[in-house]
Amino acid sequence: MKRAVCLLSGGLDSTTCLAVARREGFETFALTLDYGQRHRHEIEAARRVAQALGAARHLVLRVDLAAIGGSALTSPLAVPKDRSAEEMAAGIPVTYVPARNTVFLACALAWAETLQTGDIFIGVNAIDFSGYPDCRPEYIEAFERMANLATKATVEGRLRVRIHTPLIGLSKADIVRLALELGVDPGWTHSCYDPDEHGRPCGACDACILRRKGFREAGVPDPLEIRREDR
Amino acid sequence: MKRAVCLLSGGLDSTTCLAVARREGFETFALTLDYGQRHRHEIEAARRVAQALGAARHLVLRVDLAAIGGSALTSPLAVPKDRSAEEMAAGIPVTYVPARNTVFLACALAWAETLQTGDIFIGVNAIDFSGYPDCRPEYIEAFERMANLATKATVEGRLRVRIHTPLIGLSKADIVRLALELGVDPGWTHSCYDPDEHGRPCGACDACILRRKGFREAGVPDPLEIRREDR
Repeated sequence: MKRAVCLLSGGLDSTTCLAVARREGFETFALTLDYGQRHRHEIEAARRVAQALGAARHLVLRVDLAAIGGSALTSPLAVPKDRSAEEMAAGIPVTYVPARNTVFLACALAWAETLQTGDIFIGVNAIDFSGYPDCRPEYIEAFERMANLATKATVEGRLRVRIHTPLIGLSKADIVRLALELGVDPGWTHSCYDPDEHGRPCGACDACILRRKGFREAGVPDPLEIRREDR
Repeated sequence: MKRAVCLLSGGLDSTTCLAVARREGFETFALTLDYGQRHRHEIEAARRVAQALGAARHLVLRVDLAAIGGSALTSPLAVPKDRSAEEMAAGIPVTYVPARNTVFLACALAWAETLQTGDIFIGVNAIDFSGYPDCRPEYIEAFERMANLATKATVEGRLRVRIHTPLIGLSKADIVRLALELGVDPGWTHSCYDPDEHGRPCGACDACILRRKGFREAGVPDPLEIRREDR
């Protein structure tokens, strides 16, 4: 069975991406980065997802990006709330984490080489997203090219690195539909950047707003939204 | 004063590279990765070097590559000893750590963006080295290209990432001479992959052999070699 390393934050996108890898016949190795994110509840969500979707292994790797800071997700900066679509479209927000996907993909590349595979899945999305530069196709292509020059296995010709981005061209509504089609329970996942101490979503950060938009457009209820309104 | 992030393992090459950055007028931010390497003594060497060379800050960042394994430096695999030049030239050895420089440069990129600089120094060398793929110029160029697509600061046009590799075309003897010219005391540094419990070099691993070759060709004694022979 062919193997794939699947980056898994515990959010809806990476969960759906893992489900796609499984549908494509890969034995999945889920990789979650514990990088000092304020929304640590997503790591618990990732554990639920990896188990529910039958990952062969789930590795939670610590990389202390909070020691570097520079983001509202890894430092005391406030997470922006209740932003309009125009505000979101206007630029890259303070929830951007410096070089996060580069660090994540580098770790995925290391694990993939050890597992003797070149297949890496990442749930980046360039449609309904927060404008992060390291979610765009041109970035992913450049990473893939670099990765094929970086490792022993690729240079010796035993592997070819391929960064799979099955969600990159989908809207959030498309992702919701695909998740349900693949048997994902959105209640397993966690999207909010600024949850309360019980892990309940704030409903107002960009991640909550984009998630809500996706479920509304797909015409299905979000189990997390129901839980939030129960407060 | 312009800033630079300098990857610093604590070996002779990265130390000399840091000294070059200082000579070029950079305020230096030294970054050492604590990745579970068996030769942890190099981290202490890095602390000595950062202090001696006046780094503005020294960050020791933990990234648990030992959880990934796949290398004699991060797993119980034996470190090869007493290899000939022909054996070393024959291929990439088991001391190769999967995607190590990609992980290191990704972390350096994250810190550089937070420090608002695009200048990153890495002491890779493609002459007297162990054949690691992520030390070659074509790899470094591909990383630089990817990095310029990866970050908020580069995409917004505020920074341009430049990966400086001042040692890439030097022999080990050239590096020894340059180190001494720049006031580096090689006694601060640590090169051995398999030191004893006191941090004394084994004298037989590839890193020790290449280091010895460099000092011999430069015609100067290595303070670490003298210490080793004192055992």
